Amino acid sequence: MKDQLIIFDTTMRDGEQSPGAAMTRDDKVRVGKQLERLRVDVIEAGFAASSPGDFDAIRAVAATVKDSTVCSLARANDNDVKRAGEAIKGANSGRIHTFIATSPIHMQHKLRMQPEAVLEAAVRAVKLARQYTDDVEFSAEDAVRSDVDFLCRIFEAAIAAGARTINVPDTVGYSVPQLWGELFATLIGRIPNAGMAVWSTHCHNDLGMAVANSLAAVMAGARQVECTINGLGERAGNASLEEIVMAVKTRSDFFKCATRVDATQIVAASKLVSTITGYPVQPNKAVVGANAFAHESGIHQDGVLKHRETYEIMRASDVGWGANRLTLGKLSGRSAFKARLQELGIALASEEQLNAAFARFKELADKKREIFDEDIQALMSDETVTPEVERYKLISLTAHSETGEQPFARVVISEEGREARAEARGGGPVDATFKAIESIVASGTELMLYSVNNVTEGTDSQGEVTVRLEKAGRIVNGMGSDTDIVVASAKAYLNALNKMAAKSQRMNPQYGVEARAV
Amino acid sequence: MKDQLIIFDTTMRDGEQSPGAAMTRDDKVRVGKQLERLRVDVIEAGFAASSPGDFDAIRAVAATVKDSTVCSLARANDNDVKRAGEAIKGANSGRIHTFIATSPIHMQHKLRMQPEAVLEAAVRAVKLARQYTDDVEFSAEDAVRSDVDFLCRIFEAAIAAGARTINVPDTVGYSVPQLWGELFATLIGRIPNAGMAVWSTHCHNDLGMAVANSLAAVMAGARQVECTINGLGERAGNASLEEIVMAVKTRSDFFKCATRVDATQIVAASKLVSTITGYPVQPNKAVVGANAFAHESGIHQDGVLKHRETYEIMRASDVGWGANRLTLGKLSGRSAFKARLQELGIALASEEQLNAAFARFKELADKKREIFDEDIQALMSDETVTPEVERYKLISLTAHSETGEQPFARVVISEEGREARAEARGGGPVDATFKAIESIVASGTELMLYSVNNVTEGTDSQGEVTVRLEKAGRIVNGMGSDTDIVVASAKAYLNALNKMAAKSQRMNPQYGVEARAV
Repeated sequence: MKDQLIIFDTTMRDGEQSPGAAMTRDDKVRVGKQLERLRVDVIEAGFAASSPGDFDAIRAVAATVKDSTVCSLARANDNDVKRAGEAIKGANSGRIHTFIATSPIHMQHKLRMQPEAVLEAAVRAVKLARQYTDDVEFSAEDAVRSDVDFLCRIFEAAIAAGARTINVPDTVGYSVPQLWGELFATLIGRIPNAGMAVWSTHCHNDLGMAVANSLAAVMAGARQVECTINGLGERAGNASLEEIVMAVKTRSDFFKCATRVDATQIVAASKLVSTITGYPVQPNKAVVGANAFAHESGIHQDGVLKHRETYEIMRASDVGWGANRLTLGKLSGRSAFKARLQELGIALASEEQLNAAFARFKELADKKREIFDEDIQALMSDETVTPEVERYKLISLTAHSETGEQPFARVVISEEGREARAEARGGGPVDATFKAIESIVASGTELMLYSVNNVTEGTDSQGEVTVRLEKAGRIVNGMGSDTDIVVASAKAYLNALNKMAAKSQRMNPQYGVEARAV
Repeated sequence: MKDQLIIFDTTMRDGEQSPGAAMTRDDKVRVGKQLERLRVDVIEAGFAASSPGDFDAIRAVAATVKDSTVCSLARANDNDVKRAGEAIKGANSGRIHTFIATSPIHMQHKLRMQPEAVLEAAVRAVKLARQYTDDVEFSAEDAVRSDVDFLCRIFEAAIAAGARTINVPDTVGYSVPQLWGELFATLIGRIPNAGMAVWSTHCHNDLGMAVANSLAAVMAGARQVECTINGLGERAGNASLEEIVMAVKTRSDFFKCATRVDATQIVAASKLVSTITGYPVQPNKAVVGANAFAHESGIHQDGVLKHRETYEIMRASDVGWGANRLTLGKLSGRSAFKARLQELGIALASEEQLNAAFARFKELADKKREIFDEDIQALMSDETVTPEVERYKLISLTAHSETGEQPFARVVISEEGREARAEARGGGPVDATFKAIESIVASGTELMLYSVNNVTEGTDSQGEVTVRLEKAGRIVNGMGSDTDIVVASAKAYLNALNKMAAKSQRMNPQYGVEARAV
């Protein structure tokens, strides 16, 4: 039998550190459920000490997910470890992942600590973590640029202190497969108690080699890979979960281990994460890009391929393409809608919320012939901002464009219950709408990104608009969907403003300061 | 001194095989000039025998580009090689790249040829190609799944016949770095005349390892890498040029070779290819994604980093981020506009075309305060369809949406000179516009993809709309830009219809049949 390769998903922690990709508690519960369906082994749900909101989110994921281990990140200090331990208390299986930087450049410029003090802090954090759970992971941040002798010492000490998983991160995406494999071989070969821990690899994609580096570590003895859905993550992102899983599966002749992931859930997970974070997936992305299996449709469908395997090493259905298509229509009732929501992992707190969602569903079904899972997810993601923080709401909108004239928009919004109206002209109806809204709210934000994607194919599809706003260094993504692109844009803009107003600040674990993520 | 690593760009050949990514002659000349500016060694400009249009495009690139070698693909048959030879005749330095499949599955199911016949065809094609140029490259398609003994025999014969470059493709994206490196070591070690050729690697990204595989081949002795801008290509795409180049540069301590590429031209090349093909680049794409250097902006700008190198292995400016920003404004004159077009590599055939382009520029400058290079590129890419094939043209458009009512659009278009008008209601103003156009043209196409991206930041930015239409297996991408998103959508839709009407069919070299690319 093959060794098991542990898949550690950090979409909700390292992935979430992407600008504007922060998730609410409800978002995290939805993603957590999908990761559980995907049969991921460990879900890093957040960084408990970063904010009260993230603490709650981890606790909610820990209470919901039953089949995967739920993990919180913690810097190597008492408070962080304590918060992490409290956050995972409700989990069936909970892990604390504590870390400290070990490279000279990080110890000197970021931590301002001597190596001995770093080692002591690591040991202390691991020991404290073991008081909350037996499942403790230790990471040496920026291991790729650390001194190997020091790495051996700190890892040996962490294992002796009770760490059961040792994670080696290429924090800056600097390594190449050969060197990364050699580093693992060295560490595992030299550390006397190496056999008492599972070795883990955590790679970034700055030079396009995160997946290959991760798998080189696996060849050298690592048995846990840290990765994210869609390769989401800071800068060029982390190793892509879907690529790791499919490489190990497709090349099972070469890799001496196997994962327990249900690959048919990959596409659903990819779409959910993309929808929630507002991060699109490019068509030529491996496994989850729209073209990854394009030889099965369009130009290659009509008998071009004389033999299926001529150009195919995986099947689209293996990773969940083509599954979950048409689901509901105009005549679907409330119970069918409720059942589908449950299957999609969307939980509604009350019957009132269900009624409101069903009313929106019926409204959409009037405008659109066929309702797909993606439509329902888009419909529900309009509601991810909880009522408490919903400061602005769209009441009505009129937009008019005519070639040769300046486009015009009139909006009525409510601001904390009070109605306000404004009109404006602009370069287009969307510009005019944003200007009209700004003339009411005077947010002073700057529009950094505006993008629209069809939720499904066909002209009557809903448009899903992502708006990225920036103010004083703080970045938020807003999303809105509607069959009318101007209305979707207004919703997305207000959604972003609501997030901006929510003022939830979150710490970035690596910089150790307020990172102002939502 | 280090060995030179030859960068062979196949964006315009293998990249172009992505559904809907086909380029016109003018597109190819623009991309070719940018690749020359990037100091790419070899530009594969197309597949001459695939269509008269592509033959012309390669000839135009060969006539324009002076500092890079210009190459055409050719299957291993007399006609293909002859057409390739004629297409590159005008080049300062021209190459013919001939190929044939060598794996049992391809020889049996696609070629229906015995190995001996395949070997003979290869030798004959290489010899014929040498009558046109000394610079002949031979590829063994699907080498990754070929018998190594047969590969040794066919490569040895191809070198003896005069091939100066031997390319080994992982056609299906199946390999892993260790095995790919071992294959190169075996081939170079066993083939007696291996030293008389440059060894080349061509990798696909289906398992996310195209870049690492390419570089493993380089470590084993390959000195040419075939790659594409943005990793564009069929399915999950090819190895990314920008990742290969920056990996070799950033890890010059490890790689024993260097490229002559001017990395500061990378971002401009990425944007140009994305604009022309309609293929977006995801934010978390290495090197060229919008977030690749996000720690230089937004949340990390305000002094979070105590030391620049803590999280940075490359600088954004190294690859051309932040260059070419604000360029022209409302008061810029015709000559400044013309000069900027030239700097951007956009050639206009006549003074009339320049006047028309300048008029559109002035119109845009009235609507938008600051004009960036991206705006000019978007403006000009509206004109990539040459007048001969411009069957449909937008005359005017009125769109109206109002919450609670069904959005409405009225369009006037000209169809081969005749004006026609129609109105329709739809789920949104864009849907209504498309329906109104369809009621005139009755194209019977299906909308597969609709996306909008801002050309630059800010609410008065132009929206660039990409529309992908499909009819009977044929796929085209249309693009349109305008400050008004509804107008941009109408332009993109008509652009796609014009491409669909152009009926230019092109052969896919690998399937050997009409691939119906534009």
